[in-house]
Amino acid sequence: MLHFTIQQTDPSGARTGRVTVRGRGFDTPAFLPVATQASVKALTQEELVHLKSQIILANAYHLYLRPGLELIRQAGGLGPFMRWSGPTLTDSGGYQVFSLAPLIEVTDDGVSFRSHIDGSEHLLTPRSAIEIQHALDADIIMAFDQPVAHPARREETQAATLRSDRWAARCVEAHRGASDQALFGIVQGGFEPDLRTESARRLAELPFEGYAIGGLSVGEPKDLTFRILAHTAPLLPADRPRYLMGVGTPADMVRAVLSGIDMFDCVLPTRLGRNGTAYTKTGKINLKNARYQDDLGALDPDCGCEVCATYSRAYLRHLHKSGEILAARCLSYHNMHLYLRLMEDIRAAIRAGRCRQFADELLARREENG
Amino acid sequence: MLHFTIQQTDPSGARTGRVTVRGRGFDTPAFLPVATQASVKALTQEELVHLKSQIILANAYHLYLRPGLELIRQAGGLGPFMRWSGPTLTDSGGYQVFSLAPLIEVTDDGVSFRSHIDGSEHLLTPRSAIEIQHALDADIIMAFDQPVAHPARREETQAATLRSDRWAARCVEAHRGASDQALFGIVQGGFEPDLRTESARRLAELPFEGYAIGGLSVGEPKDLTFRILAHTAPLLPADRPRYLMGVGTPADMVRAVLSGIDMFDCVLPTRLGRNGTAYTKTGKINLKNARYQDDLGALDPDCGCEVCATYSRAYLRHLHKSGEILAARCLSYHNMHLYLRLMEDIRAAIRAGRCRQFADELLARREENG
Repeated sequence: MLHFTIQQTDPSGARTGRVTVRGRGFDTPAFLPVATQASVKALTQEELVHLKSQIILANAYHLYLRPGLELIRQAGGLGPFMRWSGPTLTDSGGYQVFSLAPLIEVTDDGVSFRSHIDGSEHLLTPRSAIEIQHALDADIIMAFDQPVAHPARREETQAATLRSDRWAARCVEAHRGASDQALFGIVQGGFEPDLRTESARRLAELPFEGYAIGGLSVGEPKDLTFRILAHTAPLLPADRPRYLMGVGTPADMVRAVLSGIDMFDCVLPTRLGRNGTAYTKTGKINLKNARYQDDLGALDPDCGCEVCATYSRAYLRHLHKSGEILAARCLSYHNMHLYLRLMEDIRAAIRAGRCRQFADELLARREENG
Repeated sequence: MLHFTIQQTDPSGARTGRVTVRGRGFDTPAFLPVATQASVKALTQEELVHLKSQIILANAYHLYLRPGLELIRQAGGLGPFMRWSGPTLTDSGGYQVFSLAPLIEVTDDGVSFRSHIDGSEHLLTPRSAIEIQHALDADIIMAFDQPVAHPARREETQAATLRSDRWAARCVEAHRGASDQALFGIVQGGFEPDLRTESARRLAELPFEGYAIGGLSVGEPKDLTFRILAHTAPLLPADRPRYLMGVGTPADMVRAVLSGIDMFDCVLPTRLGRNGTAYTKTGKINLKNARYQDDLGALDPDCGCEVCATYSRAYLRHLHKSGEILAARCLSYHNMHLYLRLMEDIRAAIRAGRCRQFADELLARREENG
């Protein structure tokens, strides 16, 4: 049973509140660091606590294939397995099975596919995806959906959306009475506003404890993302958490908050970190750029994190160019610090009734892609 | 100017003391974590402090090629560049240039070679190797030598040893009056006891502030290593630190201490860590082994480090098999903890006059290769 208390709504439509589920809570808007394989890449769980991450996400698809459900069940679930005592969320694997695995057959029943690790054959259905997530025992679990390809013809979008909505109902059936975990539905509909409307309407009729928007930020122009988002978010039940999956940059998140989004996840802070890129208050810096060769200044002079207080850009650039793990550690840590402080700042701006102004200032400061 | 105070000598020949150089000190016997490219792989400098590492080693060859001397000079030297405030030592590059770089020409003057990074041409001479180490500004620097190949014919060993000894004298010349760093000589002589004797005698006549034994643990049988070590160590001035380069396993180090060795360096704790292997009190465990698949116990039940207090073998095995950086971090941290606690235990055993017994017990507990 999930409780969601909206503590304040900003004139912009942004809202801040608190979710509690099974005795564990997190403040919204929330950013969920991505622990795909039960580890947020390059960081320890202790560091995530130190960074005040309140909830993390893992992927059912990956954990089902490796290390397998039996071990995680034996360990007491995902949290005890990875020694993370805060709230957890698992993605159902819908997105991963369609993007990572060689598919064998997709029918209305489910998806048979080969493991991207060892080629073994597996079948995922709405029911089995829920049962897998029961075994993993995250606090929040996601419905199993068929993501819409991008770009896609309208008929393809419609077919995948209708199937996802049928699967959503089967996920609810599989979950009913079986677990105290909170199940979220995922609205599809691609870039067709009327299909988004229909999907949102159908899902709102099902007893989900939260609603995600899937299929955005899949390569489309940003303006389109935010047009579809602004269309879809208000269709979701206002008293339930709204989760924008796989989004995004700091600028993306602050814009989405204005549409009433409460939860985000994204691999960017750690992926960019491993790739030598750091977010700063004003945009991104890529340490591979020769201009940082002799730059003995702090990574982000406006940041108070341990990395910025300790190491220089030139040293971090040297580590990255030399393939040292410490570069990935430091940049991932700093980026995660920036993301989590940004969510704190967003929550404070909403409480102060000035979220629109906060967003405008942030967007003006950042480069277009920052 | 280096000061070495031997505080206690054990009946076995082992000794414990303290080295101070330029106001920074470390206790002996000491293990030096290897920061080849100005980073101990997978660990932060803060973690090394927390693990009570007292001195670290970096490689002049690597740092000269990347990021280059100018940057490190500008940063104030190796320590300030990497934000390590304890003592530092640089290896001269003799070993690296002969093992990593495509050689162009080796003459009595020095070695011309191509960078293993970008193929650019460089010349290292005894003088330039010392000047490079002056720029890096580590507290202890090493003479530039030509390592003896293994296996080698006696004439090859003799030629390389004679050349190294001539180069040692040129290093002393290049260093004299130019810096307050402490210069160590490196005894060669391969596996020929009489050549070791001659090399040690020649080097002892030069005003080095410490003496290293090079060219051991290069693939030869362990018995031969320790026969040559037992022959060579007593030939080195007893009032100067004795440094056994590139050695070794916990068992190797405890045996070498009995021959009066004061300093060690080795990549094993971090290299094995990245490779999925952990040292434990009784030997090594390789987490790739299927027997750890469901092992929810601590990595090393006898260890008090944060990794062993937190994560299970099965979780760490999963991380390693999944290619997660956290596996390398945790295993490197644990292994380094074990190495540094071992040196503390060795020092305590020497102070208690029971180093031989300590060594016998440790060797009995460990597997042959542990």
